[in-house]
Amino acid sequence: MQTPKKIAIVGSGLVGSLLAIYLKKAGHVVHIYDRSPDIRKIQFSGRSINLAMSNRGWKALDGVGVGDAVREIAIPMDKRAIHLVNSLKFQNYGQEGESIYSISRGTLNRKMIDLAEQAGAEFFFEHKVWDVTLATATLHIGETERGEWEERKYNMVFGADGAFSRIRHRMQRQSMFNYSQEFLNIGYKELNIPANVDGSHKLDKNSFHIWPRGEYMLIALPNLDGSFTCTLFMPFEGENSFDSLVDRKEVEAFFEKNFPDSIEVIPDLAEDFFKNPTSTLVTMKCFPWTYTDKVALIGDACHAIVPFYGQGMNAGFEDITVLYEMILKYGEDWEAIFSEYQKSRKPNADAIAELSYRNFMEMSSKTADDKFLMQKKIEKWFSRKHPDKWVPLYSRVTFSDRPYVEALAIGDFQNAIMEEVLKMDNIDAIWDSPEVENKILELLQC
Amino acid sequence: MQTPKKIAIVGSGLVGSLLAIYLKKAGHVVHIYDRSPDIRKIQFSGRSINLAMSNRGWKALDGVGVGDAVREIAIPMDKRAIHLVNSLKFQNYGQEGESIYSISRGTLNRKMIDLAEQAGAEFFFEHKVWDVTLATATLHIGETERGEWEERKYNMVFGADGAFSRIRHRMQRQSMFNYSQEFLNIGYKELNIPANVDGSHKLDKNSFHIWPRGEYMLIALPNLDGSFTCTLFMPFEGENSFDSLVDRKEVEAFFEKNFPDSIEVIPDLAEDFFKNPTSTLVTMKCFPWTYTDKVALIGDACHAIVPFYGQGMNAGFEDITVLYEMILKYGEDWEAIFSEYQKSRKPNADAIAELSYRNFMEMSSKTADDKFLMQKKIEKWFSRKHPDKWVPLYSRVTFSDRPYVEALAIGDFQNAIMEEVLKMDNIDAIWDSPEVENKILELLQC
Repeated sequence: MQTPKKIAIVGSGLVGSLLAIYLKKAGHVVHIYDRSPDIRKIQFSGRSINLAMSNRGWKALDGVGVGDAVREIAIPMDKRAIHLVNSLKFQNYGQEGESIYSISRGTLNRKMIDLAEQAGAEFFFEHKVWDVTLATATLHIGETERGEWEERKYNMVFGADGAFSRIRHRMQRQSMFNYSQEFLNIGYKELNIPANVDGSHKLDKNSFHIWPRGEYMLIALPNLDGSFTCTLFMPFEGENSFDSLVDRKEVEAFFEKNFPDSIEVIPDLAEDFFKNPTSTLVTMKCFPWTYTDKVALIGDACHAIVPFYGQGMNAGFEDITVLYEMILKYGEDWEAIFSEYQKSRKPNADAIAELSYRNFMEMSSKTADDKFLMQKKIEKWFSRKHPDKWVPLYSRVTFSDRPYVEALAIGDFQNAIMEEVLKMDNIDAIWDSPEVENKILELLQC
Repeated sequence: MQTPKKIAIVGSGLVGSLLAIYLKKAGHVVHIYDRSPDIRKIQFSGRSINLAMSNRGWKALDGVGVGDAVREIAIPMDKRAIHLVNSLKFQNYGQEGESIYSISRGTLNRKMIDLAEQAGAEFFFEHKVWDVTLATATLHIGETERGEWEERKYNMVFGADGAFSRIRHRMQRQSMFNYSQEFLNIGYKELNIPANVDGSHKLDKNSFHIWPRGEYMLIALPNLDGSFTCTLFMPFEGENSFDSLVDRKEVEAFFEKNFPDSIEVIPDLAEDFFKNPTSTLVTMKCFPWTYTDKVALIGDACHAIVPFYGQGMNAGFEDITVLYEMILKYGEDWEAIFSEYQKSRKPNADAIAELSYRNFMEMSSKTADDKFLMQKKIEKWFSRKHPDKWVPLYSRVTFSDRPYVEALAIGDFQNAIMEEVLKMDNIDAIWDSPEVENKILELLQC
């Protein structure tokens, strides 16, 4: 236990709630502010992508004893189900027993808030934090940005208020604050595959379903109630784009042509398409993440990434794991805790941002590409023979807790090796031969 | 003449003032707002770097008939004077007759405001613009950010309010707005070489003086009154840094050791060093630059760059040249004018940002490097023999008005060629031989 501090967390999302549980465990007074109403009392908006909890997420949850409570609302997915226009292929994510877990964002967030309240954190919903005085950890709260504000002073403030963080917004106005936000030209829209009348799933329940089509793709992740949350990723403008689909007929024709096996499982296609918003995707980077021992950013507030590696929440939860390691290491020295936390996490946040950006390419186009599938096949075969010598990139990111920077670096090295291997004569025939095995072993020595 | 519009320009700096003159020429009502007092009535701060006006700047000034008025306050510099620790070398910037022009920022800004007033623009100094309503081109002006604001509605608003633009700040809060700001770990400080008692210059008047020392460097640009404005560029932290020089003695010892020939010409060295602020250097990029036909950013407000190519002002002035070309082309269609303006300028702004960043390396370290000097010598020799085949990068940027993107691309191609040439056996001896000439001619065909 540390000397109790009065700590404010801005943002009651997944990272804010889990951080609250950790800080309660460390003995602090914890207040969580959110500008929105209590998510447990409202209908969740139709603009979500289901979460894929993996190793780093579970480690953070288990680290504070709430993993099992979350497992109850999670569905394991051990493979990709790749829906080509005329066929369906399956591709395991990892080795036997390795899965990622589908969880609905709304369900998880409600659960996390319950757990944080049980741990003793106090929530202030519908409290809009407009500004923070960094030097004194003072929040400025009010109904409107230009109206009256009330001040609330803390020992410490955490900004867990997401990609458009108000806390970061104040830090941005300091000199020497590096910052970037970059939007993809691709947006996304939530759609829905309802359950069968008997409550069972209409598609294989334990798969991450994906319809890769080059520039655009559809994905579907299972929910507990038998439904799937689908997400359509597509350019805003151009030939196959949100802009180009302006009425029911066009949407239905587009799906019939490009996602034929989705038609009968998405009954409210056109209705949902026009009812649900089209959302944007942004990569946000910044530095520094902390201000003396007073203010720290965490999760999306300091490293928002695109969702194509399923690591946004996992990376945010891992921030908490690392912060807690620093708390254990540096005790009462919060300046050291904050400084080492950002030093440790920044390069890893940059690495997963890069990997996530690249993975859009892989998911949307390469999963339907023969050369890519051959590469994956060779990697899996070699990895089975030499599990100590070849851990696939996806597994390093998803099923381990080694640093993302390491995964990125080794992944690049492995890709360079595979590029050489794929150039070998007649590789389609000899892909599982001793010749290929020896070639890889030799290249690994370089 | 266009249909007269009521136009507000935020920022009375160099770009704002010149833009005002152009918009008056096009027949508009022009109001210029600045949060600061009239620069003509106050002492200019000791945190400036002298300007180096070159082709693009002159073209914009001459395009509206004010070039000659500015030439009166400019001093031509036809060469670099490279101060090594024990010697002095000169290096011409271009061909015979090609110069860049040293102008003090304060002097030029005062002149530009005079010229804009003479053209009929109206200035509102000490008016703080805190926000803008983009859809209606309405400025929100007041004494403090949280106090009472007054609204002023225009047909159009230009944000010429620099790297920390308030107008851009509002645009940043839109979705799909890409933005980055990145600070160098290097800062700068103004110093001064006063005139001789007879008003003459203590160093060669027609040179850009540079003391390149690897990670840090000193430069000096001439003023009309016989003085030089010096700028010391140096890391904030580390061995040779602003942080490491904490008292008079250390500053004087540092200069004596590293810039020995500067000692006798900078009499108030230590005093100025501690009196003048240490300023930061930022590269800022964003997109889009415009909002419908209502709001446009220009100059540093949409593309702040580091000063190492001397192109910040020149690039901002070129924005105006291009905007005016679009006005001539699209007449009353301001949506097309704004759209084509940003489309034309954005890639060029990115290119000069990249070139400026790279040029720090060249100025600080490579100007003292034998290989680099050999490369420059070969380039100059070849360029003299084949002026149609080899225009040096510096000349493309500085003495032409071809797009920056083209300069960057051709510069990269030329560097690749020179890398091959410098690998030739015995290049120090054969550098001006037919063998080298033919090698370059051959590589240019690739």
